[in-house]
Amino acid sequence: MSESNSNMQTVNVAVIGASGYTGLELIRFLLIHPKYRIVALTADSHAGKKIGDVFQHLNSYNLPSLIKVEDVDFSKIDAVFCCVPNGTSQNIISNIPDNIKVCDLSADFRFDDIKLYEKTYNQKHLAHNLQEKSVYGLTEINRDKIKKTRLVACPGCYPTSALLPLLPLIKKDIIKIENIIIDSKSGISGAGRTQRDSLLFTEVSDGFSAYGLINHRHRPEIESQLKKYSNNDVLISFTPHLLPIKRGILSTIYINTDEKHDITDIKDCLKESYEEEIFVSIKKDNLIPSTHDVRGSNFCHIGIFHDDRSKQIIIISVLDNLVKGASGQAIQNMNVMLGIDEKEGLTQGVIFP
Amino acid sequence: MSESNSNMQTVNVAVIGASGYTGLELIRFLLIHPKYRIVALTADSHAGKKIGDVFQHLNSYNLPSLIKVEDVDFSKIDAVFCCVPNGTSQNIISNIPDNIKVCDLSADFRFDDIKLYEKTYNQKHLAHNLQEKSVYGLTEINRDKIKKTRLVACPGCYPTSALLPLLPLIKKDIIKIENIIIDSKSGISGAGRTQRDSLLFTEVSDGFSAYGLINHRHRPEIESQLKKYSNNDVLISFTPHLLPIKRGILSTIYINTDEKHDITDIKDCLKESYEEEIFVSIKKDNLIPSTHDVRGSNFCHIGIFHDDRSKQIIIISVLDNLVKGASGQAIQNMNVMLGIDEKEGLTQGVIFP
Amino acid sequence: MSESNSNMQTVNVAVIGASGYTGLELIRFLLIHPKYRIVALTADSHAGKKIGDVFQHLNSYNLPSLIKVEDVDFSKIDAVFCCVPNGTSQNIISNIPDNIKVCDLSADFRFDDIKLYEKTYNQKHLAHNLQEKSVYGLTEINRDKIKKTRLVACPGCYPTSALLPLLPLIKKDIIKIENIIIDSKSGISGAGRTQRDSLLFTEVSDGFSAYGLINHRHRPEIESQLKKYSNNDVLISFTPHLLPIKRGILSTIYINTDEKHDITDIKDCLKESYEEEIFVSIKKDNLIPSTHDVRGSNFCHIGIFHDDRSKQIIIISVLDNLVKGASGQAIQNMNVMLGIDEKEGLTQGVIFP
Amino acid sequence: MSESNSNMQTVNVAVIGASGYTGLELIRFLLIHPKYRIVALTADSHAGKKIGDVFQHLNSYNLPSLIKVEDVDFSKIDAVFCCVPNGTSQNIISNIPDNIKVCDLSADFRFDDIKLYEKTYNQKHLAHNLQEKSVYGLTEINRDKIKKTRLVACPGCYPTSALLPLLPLIKKDIIKIENIIIDSKSGISGAGRTQRDSLLFTEVSDGFSAYGLINHRHRPEIESQLKKYSNNDVLISFTPHLLPIKRGILSTIYINTDEKHDITDIKDCLKESYEEEIFVSIKKDNLIPSTHDVRGSNFCHIGIFHDDRSKQIIIISVLDNLVKGASGQAIQNMNVMLGIDEKEGLTQGVIFP
Repeated sequence: MSESNSNMQTVNVAVIGASGYTGLELIRFLLIHPKYRIVALTADSHAGKKIGDVFQHLNSYNLPSLIKVEDVDFSKIDAVFCCVPNGTSQNIISNIPDNIKVCDLSADFRFDDIKLYEKTYNQKHLAHNLQEKSVYGLTEINRDKIKKTRLVACPGCYPTSALLPLLPLIKKDIIKIENIIIDSKSGISGAGRTQRDSLLFTEVSDGFSAYGLINHRHRPEIESQLKKYSNNDVLISFTPHLLPIKRGILSTIYINTDEKHDITDIKDCLKESYEEEIFVSIKKDNLIPSTHDVRGSNFCHIGIFHDDRSKQIIIISVLDNLVKGASGQAIQNMNVMLGIDEKEGLTQGVIFP
Repeated sequence: MSESNSNMQTVNVAVIGASGYTGLELIRFLLIHPKYRIVALTADSHAGKKIGDVFQHLNSYNLPSLIKVEDVDFSKIDAVFCCVPNGTSQNIISNIPDNIKVCDLSADFRFDDIKLYEKTYNQKHLAHNLQEKSVYGLTEINRDKIKKTRLVACPGCYPTSALLPLLPLIKKDIIKIENIIIDSKSGISGAGRTQRDSLLFTEVSDGFSAYGLINHRHRPEIESQLKKYSNNDVLISFTPHLLPIKRGILSTIYINTDEKHDITDIKDCLKESYEEEIFVSIKKDNLIPSTHDVRGSNFCHIGIFHDDRSKQIIIISVLDNLVKGASGQAIQNMNVMLGIDEKEGLTQGVIFP
Repeated sequence: MSESNSNMQTVNVAVIGASGYTGLELIRFLLIHPKYRIVALTADSHAGKKIGDVFQHLNSYNLPSLIKVEDVDFSKIDAVFCCVPNGTSQNIISNIPDNIKVCDLSADFRFDDIKLYEKTYNQKHLAHNLQEKSVYGLTEINRDKIKKTRLVACPGCYPTSALLPLLPLIKKDIIKIENIIIDSKSGISGAGRTQRDSLLFTEVSDGFSAYGLINHRHRPEIESQLKKYSNNDVLISFTPHLLPIKRGILSTIYINTDEKHDITDIKDCLKESYEEEIFVSIKKDNLIPSTHDVRGSNFCHIGIFHDDRSKQIIIISVLDNLVKGASGQAIQNMNVMLGIDEKEGLTQGVIFP
Repeated sequence: MSESNSNMQTVNVAVIGASGYTGLELIRFLLIHPKYRIVALTADSHAGKKIGDVFQHLNSYNLPSLIKVEDVDFSKIDAVFCCVPNGTSQNIISNIPDNIKVCDLSADFRFDDIKLYEKTYNQKHLAHNLQEKSVYGLTEINRDKIKKTRLVACPGCYPTSALLPLLPLIKKDIIKIENIIIDSKSGISGAGRTQRDSLLFTEVSDGFSAYGLINHRHRPEIESQLKKYSNNDVLISFTPHLLPIKRGILSTIYINTDEKHDITDIKDCLKESYEEEIFVSIKKDNLIPSTHDVRGSNFCHIGIFHDDRSKQIIIISVLDNLVKGASGQAIQNMNVMLGIDEKEGLTQGVIFP
């Protein structure tokens, strides 16, 4: 971590929407980040309470009390993580002074195409000018742009798991863009802290199902990013499933090469793309990624397999939906925006077992 | 259940290999079957013990003590369920008198092509003549043949989940046989009662991974059945994954229609194929199958979905790997072989929650 | 099952409150009960829908549609299971014609002492006359009274697990009534189908905690039953905990004998009390009960242990909270009320694994 | 962390027995410890392999390859964590040079009374002289002694959860030493990385049972520590149970005060004992500890409850069995032995959800 600027002053951070899973996960990482100090935490429904009283796992820490978002004094803040729902996020960020770096974990600034956003999320977009300045925060892909922006739209969890393996291949134009199938499985925390029968322990545990077939909101997000680097529209088939686990996404991705390329090209392309990366690793041949291997960490593991007979190529990527799929990547992006060593504060190890 | 022959004498049943999960599951169903009586249970490693002492959930039942397979007196037995490992099964069944109906739950008699069996399971097949007489026990597909045979090879759990939706479509020749992708997820009981680090609770729970990519043994089983009804070889892509649940398989199957057929043909074909069936049901439009809905039962639920844009068709099938995927289907087959009402003894409801 | 009256006509049954876990569990058992036919199912919030559309695990059965409780035509009904919340239950049962047998699964009729009920449940009791006629439905203890009543109050799940081992000992006056400690652990389904953060999969799985310390509502229920058979008030210490499992209660009960009795007396007393019982079994020495051994079934297993040094006696009881702790015992009671063989319809086996 | 000696040289650490759960957990914490460097990892069965190949969650770290214990070059090592089985540990530690600080996670040096060790663990103790010099590593209790020793015996997981609340009360002599009941529930990782049917996911999940009643090995360990601070022998009743969770211990402890003291004295005593401690916290009145609140961390939370009627006092303590119950406490002890800030390297937050 010697690369970072150790003379740098402490960064004062606000977490907007601290009582959801991504807000809580940000706090876990920020608490041990040597450069950041949490100075404001908002949660409208719990305003006035100590966060350690609402979430007892935080009761040993000296943290600011929960307040309403309108009570945040932004004059004392250097960086904001915004963890509120889609739609709400735009409104809040529109009111944050320009000098403050913002990392938004909602979908509000993930779409260059505002109409596609509005159709996908079924609501108006009211901050077009902010959208134009925002950068899609897939750190490994957009690092240079992230360095120069003040607003990062942190990618969705499924899109992160799909785009990290697919984008380098699409960029290099070595796979067919037809028949890309993404069969994804996510832990329940991906559904957020929502009270629904279908998320109760009694109805989740010891079972498994698909959901949101054909039209899950993350499909247009994935397609619009793939399209950026392809000459054509890329239509994927995306099927999410709900795993009876707390954390973790595994995406099994089925692709075909074009006639001029083969499995070796695929492997070489991904290995080259990520050989310098600390958080993304391409597994050795025949090693199969598991969500167990990345649980609680900012790592993404990618395995590449090939069926000699059917010529099918199968890529499996795993990550922790709350870390590389949300709060970890958010900190990684903020580190980049602020010129801090990218891995600072993200060194907490994988929780195994 | 009025259809069955109520004057029929009680069928004396032996379960060979009673201490594995499929053996135990057979006992659960046989105990309430009005026509069957368990007269012999074998488990070499526990021979001499009461089964209720080894498995305390059975301690309230009056069951025969566990014996070695060589100590079974077949002269008193009408029907045998064989739940021993692949390879062992052939030897045992070769020594069972011809007049006894046998349902084998191993892979030993699932392959018409003996060479393919030997390659897949990496061992010799020593009972060719039995293989020729055996019927592949996908009850809904092969009911007429099962009625006339004395040896049924019960299908594998994954193959059952894949073939029930695929075979009618292949038979009717309305889907492309290229690019069939079967992304399957199975509960851990599918791995059997095996002592391995990777099956320990501590290493399974709260995580998810694929395994056996490209060359899982159930792939040739699925392909050889599909080939029977197609004019060509059918090469599938089959990726199994391990779910942190006890029971349940969900297969997400990606197929394409040929130019002359569309989603309506797919739906009509499957609805017609199974409209008279009690254990297989095609879900109404937009209802998504869940393993929760079949847990502990002999049901298989199938949902059919269609992506207008990419033309991809997605079929999801769910079943309980220990019931319709093993012991339940075994009883269903034995009922058919013996002329008993097919659903007799299989009426235990879904365990929800 | 030969003991039951096979000439008996089918009993027409209504389940009031069919969309909760106990209602659904009743349906699971009633569906295979040879004497009962479900003719009415109520669920106010889903009135008008098919139950198989709301709960897809029931979609293969021919069941009446869900209706409002006020739309039940009681003239066609012989027996009612009432699965609505405490307080609501009294109102509904007050309006059920006298000739109908009723088994209530709420707490409304569990207390002889109306004041204690009102204090414990913090609401008025408005059906004193019904209370006087009701019998506390611990079948093995009150069988003779149950035969003669038309209203059974089905015991709570924790009380069933505590009273089955304790009542015979208290009756026989061979244990001290001081320092009885009941440390209970229950699966989450015991909390009902309730939308609360604390019942979400993400917040339940991979963790464990106590709840409702000191003043859980089941403590007065247990104490009032113990008091009936003792010469003195019995003050217990009762600590419930929430297990990350769907079903199952395990109660670890710490008691002391008086000077004149020892562990042998305890064992003899319980063995004699239950030797004729099919659903309650005292385990052999040194065998430790597990919820796994009773899952999905109406069994209660009891183990008795003794610490030579400290003289402490430890009794462990296990049952499935939704079966022997609720719906199974309800059917057992109804069978007794109607003169049907007590175990009829309750023969579905333990789900293992 | 500013209190620690920042001029201190890096401490070279060996982990003996790196392939078990406590060894792996040590690595997780050591990897982010600013003062320690892992220079040797042993695992006889995997000697010669990279640890990242055996445990893929470690494949992004630069760690020494696994070697046999006899191949460790102790001349380059400052501190050893020993995570091998009871009995083996004594042999290994006997051969470690005297100048090296050792923290042993086995039971080998936990008993002052060698005979009690030999009886409890059913094997000879062959390192009496080392035993005499060892300190029982309950850091908060024995900190001063730990500072001066070179060999710490890290307490068992259950004993840590029981002794942290009980020892201050026993020391101060304000509770009765009769009828102390410790009803403990532990996650499965406590059983170690052992291949047994009873630890398979399929047989653990969705169930619960007690085990090791009356004579669990941790009972004598707890009693011998309590005895040290009491004037009399203390006979406890200790009942461990196995939770279907990966990590976490919750102990529900039932005690009685003597006539001269009451609940206030209990609370005051524990609050005073731990008010300066960072890792042990006494919860506010009525807040109930949960294993969720300490998962993955070195915290121990203690709640105190009182039943006005029965005068029973109930103390609930929770910790993560792999952290405060093993590897975290080991590092805490090593920090103390080496004069490093006690909390250094232990600041990784609670994993919630």
